Amino acid sequence: MKDATYTEIDEALKNAQEAFLAYRHTSGKQKANLLRTIAAEIENLGSELITIAMEESHLPEARLLGERGRTTGQLKLFADLLEEGSWVEASIDTAIPDRQPLPKPDLRKMLFPLGNIVVFGASNFPLAFSTAGGDTASALAAGCTVVVKAHPAHPETSGLVAKAIATALEKCGLPQHIFTHLYGKHIEVGKNLVMHPLTNAVAFTGSYIGGKALFDLASQRKVPIPVFAEMGSINPVLLLPDALKSRAESIAQQLANSITASAGQFCTKAGILIGIESNELTDFIQHLSSFISQIKPATMLYDGIANNYDYQRKIALVQTGVNLEAQSATEAQKDEAMPTIASVMAQDFLKNPTLHEEVFGAYALIIKCKHKDEMQQIIQSLEGQLTATIIAEKEELLKHKDLVDDLKNNVGRIIINGVPTGVEVCHSMQHGGTFPATTDAHFTSVGTGAIKRFVRPICLQNFPDELLPSELQASNPLNIWRLTNGKWGKD
Amino acid sequence: MKDATYTEIDEALKNAQEAFLAYRHTSGKQKANLLRTIAAEIENLGSELITIAMEESHLPEARLLGERGRTTGQLKLFADLLEEGSWVEASIDTAIPDRQPLPKPDLRKMLFPLGNIVVFGASNFPLAFSTAGGDTASALAAGCTVVVKAHPAHPETSGLVAKAIATALEKCGLPQHIFTHLYGKHIEVGKNLVMHPLTNAVAFTGSYIGGKALFDLASQRKVPIPVFAEMGSINPVLLLPDALKSRAESIAQQLANSITASAGQFCTKAGILIGIESNELTDFIQHLSSFISQIKPATMLYDGIANNYDYQRKIALVQTGVNLEAQSATEAQKDEAMPTIASVMAQDFLKNPTLHEEVFGAYALIIKCKHKDEMQQIIQSLEGQLTATIIAEKEELLKHKDLVDDLKNNVGRIIINGVPTGVEVCHSMQHGGTFPATTDAHFTSVGTGAIKRFVRPICLQNFPDELLPSELQASNPLNIWRLTNGKWGKD
Repeated sequence: MKDATYTEIDEALKNAQEAFLAYRHTSGKQKANLLRTIAAEIENLGSELITIAMEESHLPEARLLGERGRTTGQLKLFADLLEEGSWVEASIDTAIPDRQPLPKPDLRKMLFPLGNIVVFGASNFPLAFSTAGGDTASALAAGCTVVVKAHPAHPETSGLVAKAIATALEKCGLPQHIFTHLYGKHIEVGKNLVMHPLTNAVAFTGSYIGGKALFDLASQRKVPIPVFAEMGSINPVLLLPDALKSRAESIAQQLANSITASAGQFCTKAGILIGIESNELTDFIQHLSSFISQIKPATMLYDGIANNYDYQRKIALVQTGVNLEAQSATEAQKDEAMPTIASVMAQDFLKNPTLHEEVFGAYALIIKCKHKDEMQQIIQSLEGQLTATIIAEKEELLKHKDLVDDLKNNVGRIIINGVPTGVEVCHSMQHGGTFPATTDAHFTSVGTGAIKRFVRPICLQNFPDELLPSELQASNPLNIWRLTNGKWGKD
Repeated sequence: MKDATYTEIDEALKNAQEAFLAYRHTSGKQKANLLRTIAAEIENLGSELITIAMEESHLPEARLLGERGRTTGQLKLFADLLEEGSWVEASIDTAIPDRQPLPKPDLRKMLFPLGNIVVFGASNFPLAFSTAGGDTASALAAGCTVVVKAHPAHPETSGLVAKAIATALEKCGLPQHIFTHLYGKHIEVGKNLVMHPLTNAVAFTGSYIGGKALFDLASQRKVPIPVFAEMGSINPVLLLPDALKSRAESIAQQLANSITASAGQFCTKAGILIGIESNELTDFIQHLSSFISQIKPATMLYDGIANNYDYQRKIALVQTGVNLEAQSATEAQKDEAMPTIASVMAQDFLKNPTLHEEVFGAYALIIKCKHKDEMQQIIQSLEGQLTATIIAEKEELLKHKDLVDDLKNNVGRIIINGVPTGVEVCHSMQHGGTFPATTDAHFTSVGTGAIKRFVRPICLQNFPDELLPSELQASNPLNIWRLTNGKWGKD
């Protein structure tokens, strides 16, 4: 798999641009058909896809089967969205020719595709956040073309999925260049893709360093373009005392699973657990330690990420005041993530920015606070987060609802009595918090809302009905929900 | 009016942050009441406001009376939006506890305010895009606090409006620091406001140089923040032959008025008129020249802008191939904008980037194409635009609908047989094209959509009903439109 040269990238984007000019006229029904055909072609790859993805990612079969289901499910969910059609936010203000002092013109607005989207495959979801993952699905649904840079950790998996997409385009009679698949290990490939004048937006899921570098490049272009980068977070979990008192063991069990699932390689993995010093907290830590020691180390996605975990974990454990609470009783082999729990006092955490950084892998840090005020100080000290979780009995939750308010300052999703992992793909999902969780908190990269990243509103003034897209025509031929003179309806 | 010091800015944002923590709990009805009270207090300023604005801006009374109506109208339109309530995009996915292989949690999402918004007053709309203009109205409607930097060209006007807002806050029993009014002539004030860690977003209307500087600063912050800058454009007008044949004189009349209204100081002023060489075009140019020569020069907003117009106009007129077609028969006095029309051949325009730049004032350039292909080349060579206009007979429009497609690549609003000036404040308005017309084409700065700049979605997972905002509660107490399990309704 050779890195794409500048010439290949240039050609890819020129071809994509030509394909875009045709693809943007495709109806919602046609785009839905494409997405469903891609899903079918991915299913048609059968066990070969799973076998290769297992080899490349070291993820277990069950997880990859689930992820394939998630990937095809996403494609079908966007197909549903397109078939229903109201997602374009059609808005109509009809003319008032005799208005004084000036007549009001006819104004109609809806969302139109941005153009060519560069998608960076993510290492930790070789299917659902990669080649035909949520970014590609939402960009194609928006009517945009997609140029994917395969993640170097799973080139064969990516290539197979790309072939499925190419087959689907052919079966649907659509231009091949709606989708392009490129390889690139070297940072230069990503840079050339982001800087190309025909690139209109970028989608990325991965590390802060990677995402921030793309964001900086894109901001410095002659024509800056949006980079929608999801860069992970430490996903705080607040443990309130009454909940620990009544169910410390089951909470510990749930969190131990969440922290170590897929070797802790989820951007929504709980990275810090914040509790108030007490017998209940001690009890909880004992339970959690016991579960963690029983969990076997699992092989990480690739050697680089395993080395990085090893390094970050070591750095974290030698910080002032940090105590190792538990690790797996089984020794970790090469490239395996050692499940690990440590603890630290709140004041030490507050003083040390290193402890605020994500440790990507099966690691979590318990923060012991002296009282609720310290818990709030911790929350206020945190950077933007994808998620935050509150474990609480209902009564204590209602008593401490100021904690929810505190979290609303910089968190994208707040979970009560659950775990942050398991990001549901649906309309109401928000996967994106304030920086540095993501580069643009206005948008989500999971769920149907993800399509909004790749469109922009255009207003059409005084257009004859024949020249309007169906979505804005007087008779509402697609029968979609529209805002007409400020009122929602289908008339 | 002394420039705000760093200490004053720091204090303003700390106070704003405290006010935000209270203000974000204000209901839609309370916020609507605030906006209506601000509108009433602006009206209460009576003729004093108009007199001072006339003195400071040199705009005529009728224009300022209209602008005051627009300003209070905007505030009331946002109040309507808040009272209706559906703008928060409430979305509910209900739990499926027995789903296999994993239960589906209850997920609810809506838009929440971003925090503290810094608004830069614009010189060319001392009321409607300044202190209590669209940016302030939409930010307050969103539940954000606002820190306004008054434009140095109209400090007294700005101060009066700020006083009206302060009175309204007091009458509504809301914290004073929801709104702060600062002065700043020096670039340092703007820089300190954008770089302050408690600033969450910035709204700006003005020059490319000003907007781009703020965008660059904000991108380079440790925590980058969005800058919604509207930086103007040259607003191409395509003149199709049949339309010129049938109504050259009335088109010329309409355009002459649009180009010279308010001394051409509108960001949507038509800056280039693109036609195909023909007798009709010659005829049109004669009519336009005749109208332009009859229009008297008008005083510009302030001396700096007048000097700049004078300079840019001179530069434009000495470019290769540019011919002066007409200017006002009346000599321009100090600080007056000389109404001017020039022309150039398409090939000269294509070769010369200087001619693609906005000349802010009563100036337009006619571009003569040899054929339609050249017209399309011109369109494709243009940067992002707020608007584009097509003047055409219906039949030729339908025959040349590819022109509309070309414009959809980088234009925010496309007008058929009208003029780009006169930006309607309504739901369907889009005031924002691709860069450099604005820094973020996903959003608009005019119309109810402007509120979306200052909010972000937050997902609440497994929340007890009592802890949910009214907008997301099971009984839908506010009776708003919501997306429930993918279906729009009020249930």
